[in-house]
Amino acid sequence: MRITQKVRKILANYESDNPGTKANIARILMEGRLGGSGRLLILPVDQGFEHGPARSFGPNPAGYDPHYHYQLAVDAGLSAYAAPLGALEAGADAFAGAIPTILKMNSANSLHPEKDNPTQAITASVDDALRLGCAAIGYTIYPGSAQFYDMLESLRDLIAEAKACGLPTVVWSYPRGGFLTTEGETAMDVDAYAAHMACLAGAHIVKVKLPTAHLEQAEAKKVYDSEKIPTGTLAERVAHIVQACFNGRRLVVFSGGGKKGDDGILDDARAIRDGGGNGSIIGRNSFQRSREDALTLLGAIIDVYKDKA
Amino acid sequence: MRITQKVRKILANYESDNPGTKANIARILMEGRLGGSGRLLILPVDQGFEHGPARSFGPNPAGYDPHYHYQLAVDAGLSAYAAPLGALEAGADAFAGAIPTILKMNSANSLHPEKDNPTQAITASVDDALRLGCAAIGYTIYPGSAQFYDMLESLRDLIAEAKACGLPTVVWSYPRGGFLTTEGETAMDVDAYAAHMACLAGAHIVKVKLPTAHLEQAEAKKVYDSEKIPTGTLAERVAHIVQACFNGRRLVVFSGGGKKGDDGILDDARAIRDGGGNGSIIGRNSFQRSREDALTLLGAIIDVYKDKA
Amino acid sequence: MRITQKVRKILANYESDNPGTKANIARILMEGRLGGSGRLLILPVDQGFEHGPARSFGPNPAGYDPHYHYQLAVDAGLSAYAAPLGALEAGADAFAGAIPTILKMNSANSLHPEKDNPTQAITASVDDALRLGCAAIGYTIYPGSAQFYDMLESLRDLIAEAKACGLPTVVWSYPRGGFLTTEGETAMDVDAYAAHMACLAGAHIVKVKLPTAHLEQAEAKKVYDSEKIPTGTLAERVAHIVQACFNGRRLVVFSGGGKKGDDGILDDARAIRDGGGNGSIIGRNSFQRSREDALTLLGAIIDVYKDKA
Amino acid sequence: MRITQKVRKILANYESDNPGTKANIARILMEGRLGGSGRLLILPVDQGFEHGPARSFGPNPAGYDPHYHYQLAVDAGLSAYAAPLGALEAGADAFAGAIPTILKMNSANSLHPEKDNPTQAITASVDDALRLGCAAIGYTIYPGSAQFYDMLESLRDLIAEAKACGLPTVVWSYPRGGFLTTEGETAMDVDAYAAHMACLAGAHIVKVKLPTAHLEQAEAKKVYDSEKIPTGTLAERVAHIVQACFNGRRLVVFSGGGKKGDDGILDDARAIRDGGGNGSIIGRNSFQRSREDALTLLGAIIDVYKDKA
Amino acid sequence: MRITQKVRKILANYESDNPGTKANIARILMEGRLGGSGRLLILPVDQGFEHGPARSFGPNPAGYDPHYHYQLAVDAGLSAYAAPLGALEAGADAFAGAIPTILKMNSANSLHPEKDNPTQAITASVDDALRLGCAAIGYTIYPGSAQFYDMLESLRDLIAEAKACGLPTVVWSYPRGGFLTTEGETAMDVDAYAAHMACLAGAHIVKVKLPTAHLEQAEAKKVYDSEKIPTGTLAERVAHIVQACFNGRRLVVFSGGGKKGDDGILDDARAIRDGGGNGSIIGRNSFQRSREDALTLLGAIIDVYKDKA
Repeated sequence: MRITQKVRKILANYESDNPGTKANIARILMEGRLGGSGRLLILPVDQGFEHGPARSFGPNPAGYDPHYHYQLAVDAGLSAYAAPLGALEAGADAFAGAIPTILKMNSANSLHPEKDNPTQAITASVDDALRLGCAAIGYTIYPGSAQFYDMLESLRDLIAEAKACGLPTVVWSYPRGGFLTTEGETAMDVDAYAAHMACLAGAHIVKVKLPTAHLEQAEAKKVYDSEKIPTGTLAERVAHIVQACFNGRRLVVFSGGGKKGDDGILDDARAIRDGGGNGSIIGRNSFQRSREDALTLLGAIIDVYKDKA
Repeated sequence: MRITQKVRKILANYESDNPGTKANIARILMEGRLGGSGRLLILPVDQGFEHGPARSFGPNPAGYDPHYHYQLAVDAGLSAYAAPLGALEAGADAFAGAIPTILKMNSANSLHPEKDNPTQAITASVDDALRLGCAAIGYTIYPGSAQFYDMLESLRDLIAEAKACGLPTVVWSYPRGGFLTTEGETAMDVDAYAAHMACLAGAHIVKVKLPTAHLEQAEAKKVYDSEKIPTGTLAERVAHIVQACFNGRRLVVFSGGGKKGDDGILDDARAIRDGGGNGSIIGRNSFQRSREDALTLLGAIIDVYKDKA
Repeated sequence: MRITQKVRKILANYESDNPGTKANIARILMEGRLGGSGRLLILPVDQGFEHGPARSFGPNPAGYDPHYHYQLAVDAGLSAYAAPLGALEAGADAFAGAIPTILKMNSANSLHPEKDNPTQAITASVDDALRLGCAAIGYTIYPGSAQFYDMLESLRDLIAEAKACGLPTVVWSYPRGGFLTTEGETAMDVDAYAAHMACLAGAHIVKVKLPTAHLEQAEAKKVYDSEKIPTGTLAERVAHIVQACFNGRRLVVFSGGGKKGDDGILDDARAIRDGGGNGSIIGRNSFQRSREDALTLLGAIIDVYKDKA
Repeated sequence: MRITQKVRKILANYESDNPGTKANIARILMEGRLGGSGRLLILPVDQGFEHGPARSFGPNPAGYDPHYHYQLAVDAGLSAYAAPLGALEAGADAFAGAIPTILKMNSANSLHPEKDNPTQAITASVDDALRLGCAAIGYTIYPGSAQFYDMLESLRDLIAEAKACGLPTVVWSYPRGGFLTTEGETAMDVDAYAAHMACLAGAHIVKVKLPTAHLEQAEAKKVYDSEKIPTGTLAERVAHIVQACFNGRRLVVFSGGGKKGDDGILDDARAIRDGGGNGSIIGRNSFQRSREDALTLLGAIIDVYKDKA
Repeated sequence: MRITQKVRKILANYESDNPGTKANIARILMEGRLGGSGRLLILPVDQGFEHGPARSFGPNPAGYDPHYHYQLAVDAGLSAYAAPLGALEAGADAFAGAIPTILKMNSANSLHPEKDNPTQAITASVDDALRLGCAAIGYTIYPGSAQFYDMLESLRDLIAEAKACGLPTVVWSYPRGGFLTTEGETAMDVDAYAAHMACLAGAHIVKVKLPTAHLEQAEAKKVYDSEKIPTGTLAERVAHIVQACFNGRRLVVFSGGGKKGDDGILDDARAIRDGGGNGSIIGRNSFQRSREDALTLLGAIIDVYKDKA
């Protein structure tokens, strides 16, 4: 496979990483219809853990079968498929080599009573990722929670172990808990802070939610105001997140959140593209509709990203 | 031993497992009167830990002797016998090779003061399972408890270690603690969620209680209602649990709960069979009656399962 | 040394243990005046930790010297001597081979402020037991305490490590803390439960207090009543404890508690003997009287046990 | 490189260290425009973790790019550049050998809800420092916090591991939390105590804030008063800190704190110089102004230190 | 060096220890002006950690330099010098072989907010003691504190590790926290209990404060009264502590506490000598006076101990 100039340039930013880790980043960046463009579209299916099986797969029961998601990701020409241990194990052999997989290392669930300062359980290991042939590991942190430092220290160990055996790490950075308001979880300042800390912790790919124009922290607001940091449009806000990710030296992708209309999803993708973001992670909006509708939507998103890739 | 087509098909679902682990799943599936049928009937004796010796064995004092249960499981033609460390050690040599055993790794007890967010103590190791010649390990989780994440992380380590040396893991998934009501512990949505998380954590065989038609979580209830998920009959509810177990890619067995009449137990077995469940774990309803009555009842349950196996 | 039939029969119950562990059980069972009888009399001296030096040795100051207890155990013809690390170290060489020793691994103390949910500190290791030539390790658990699961998990590790290098484990099972009343700590149901859990955890020898006829747990009381489990005489209650110890497949010895008259102590021994218990652990009633009185009393207890051995 | 007499004398104070560790101290002391003078000027950039990206880099957006800080440190002729894992990784190859780097091992952040007894997360390892070619590791402690002992124990392990492979440790000692008042965090007595404990813990280079004349602890105040310890001028207070650092046997540098005017910064430097301190760590006052202004200011500070070096 | 009979007799009490550990006890017992007498005088300098640098060294600023204390211990002909990691490192090479050193492994500090149930931070390792050429390690425990069990378990690991490589352990046993009154911290019963537990934990040398005649624990008081244990004079109380230390089988030294007059210090030494104690640890009363005064006082104490050695 000839790696494109676009991808080579991205790989050069991971200057401290070994060739194995860079090769796996390249595997993801060269996969599917966006292969070589420097853009990414990832299918994550960890909602069974987060919200339970019926809320996740009730609307499209084909999704109860783990093979369904592998096949969807392959057929839609996506960059990678991310899921927890059991779900990957249930298809890892049937789809060996068919699509880069990301082993989601930790998960929360809605039965858990701790809401104020949440954390997640780590349910897999780097050894699992290796034996399942994964291209990366994924890990969620909750900046703002009183348990954030513990999450960060576990992440340190996982990143180090993964990196040493050639696996990059995707960090889901979701502000939550502590003094944060619900609005604050997606505030411009908090979201940029969350993305920046993931980079400082050594993440190769950062995943955050799309930020709103809200500013949560008083001390931060002063700087946004005095320095006149543009936050008016979604594309401007995406550009600020990219800046917080070492000024573009780290890949950053955005999640779509709950189920919504196709127009909204495509508008989001255009803003991500225009702000210089590297792509999307689309879960519920993919697998909670019929396979055909999902393929149509994912194809349309890919078209947006290819537009100016 | 010639492995049946039925069992081969089941083994194929464990596509990421090594041959050693598959061989032990096969040992259990090929054992006893249900051998080769894809159905299972397991005798678990951990009530001495959970409720104390008198409440467990007072009604049938022969059960104070650990050999009694081994012999009962053999004579009834069951698939496997599950018990804590000391109980297995007390008969492991006398019954070596006579029946597949499952080492129950953790246990709770009724003297323990923590009731709101319970956990269990891990009282054995994978090395113990190996030196005792066990065919699997067993582990209980309490989804809903504030201690669930710790239980899940210990399970991760045990599954990984067991799997690496060819031992499958049976997960008892019992929702309990936190915000759950007593009714909620066996609610359709919660039970399916508990089964699904066990699968995501990497369980080979899941054990849950039979679900009621109650729906505990408001967000889940919306989906059950809007998607019209059938929950009216016990067989329908069993079918939903099977769906939550990777659409049948993971074995799932059901527990009978407290002592009850024979008719009720056989009705349960028919519903499990008709809903596509893989069998039962019958403890107190086996060893708290006389040996003869127990053999009669277990024989009748096996007949139900053989009916359409 | 020719092992008696009585002892051979006992050793056969430890069917999963390696020859090294069985040999050490035999060392204890073949030692002293009760050697070969299947009965045991053990001298434990951990009261310096539990109650302090003056309360322990003030009444008979010779006991401040660790050599005193070794010599007393030898001269009285006892089965073994149990003590914490420092006390064994102070005589291990002078008395090497003179009497089987049991290294008490954990201890509490009366200065400690936690009374509601107590635990103990682990102050020695299996390596210590090996280098000091001990025949067994000893460990206390507090069923009922909120810290019981942690105590049980540490016990699991110690039993496994000890067993692997040929050392049996004596478990002091003392219900305490949580919802237990003071009366409940020695209640028939609770004491049997405590003994049973020690067996399930893998203990080779169980040590409990003599039970009263009180029944602490409402659910258990129902069964004792409905099944008419005899609890009227001390011998009947001892017999029930023996039943709870895998129907006699595990050795069980009883402690005498605080200082009391010789008649009471000998009556206790007769009840233990008649109920099928395996012997006594006598601490304060041995070393808090003069050496001569102690030798007289211990001799009388041995005579009781030899009576029907 | 010929090591100066000044530096040789400093190295001799690290009498228990191996040649590798001394060589790395020498690398820092011989680097840049202050090379060989026994004085140090270090650029730390961990404010992205502590305060977020916008508050750190908004005023001078060039700083979003990790390469900017490496280049600034090189061009200003500084002694070393200190930053967290991700930031060093993003430039470690491009600037390999260009300037000694200090891997900041732990960090806090302003989203964290724990304010009364703060700690930090450890986000890197000594192995990371080695693979990135760092000359030292850096670690923050919070004397006064209830979490201080845990921080100190982690520091013990990191110092030991680093020292064994030839890496010195820079300890940021910042009193905070517990009973300390805000004024007390920089009080003369508390600051000296913080510096002294860092030395006792084995730090090679101590970093504290410049102390005020305030005395926080009543017991300490008595001694300062009775012994007439001079605390009137900043230079006198710096001299006392030097005394607390084993009477000058350990290097100590001072931080400038928040953004302030050039005059204040240069006055501070003169007091550090006159009190016998070893230099400064200047973060926000370097990278939050334009590159040109930063080079001018850093040059002026260096001139102050060279004055009487 | 010819070991004296007195010292040989003491070494014989450490009957379970390897020759390396005995040799290091001998190094301390044969050192200085008390060498060979079976008595000890140790200089401890950990007050910089406990109370801060100014309160420790303000009265005699020469003490800010770690070399000062090494030299003082050598010149006064003491048995050993004890200090925390950093302080020993700062002179270990200059004074290599000049005097036995004891690495103090843990320390508290007066900035710490936890006062009710205190603990200390472990700031060094056995490996540190070995590479610095120490003759022993030192460790403080706080019987009475809710954190005592954790302190004891860490001590267990340190003693075992040290002992295995030939290093004895000095245990500072200071009752503190929990239900203890301030008066109770030095009460006869509590002090003897603290000394006894240090011995049970495996300490080679015990260090306690001189006890008062106060009796803190009601249960203990009964025994002191009924058994008429003499507590009237300081020498009698010292004799009781010696009794609690395995009737003299373990070395026990006493601390002087805060700064006091020379007469009081010498009276204490006479009582220690007459009660059969093994010596003193003198910190603040040594280094907070001028070097000349310190040498005079330490010489006078040595003369007291040599008197009847």
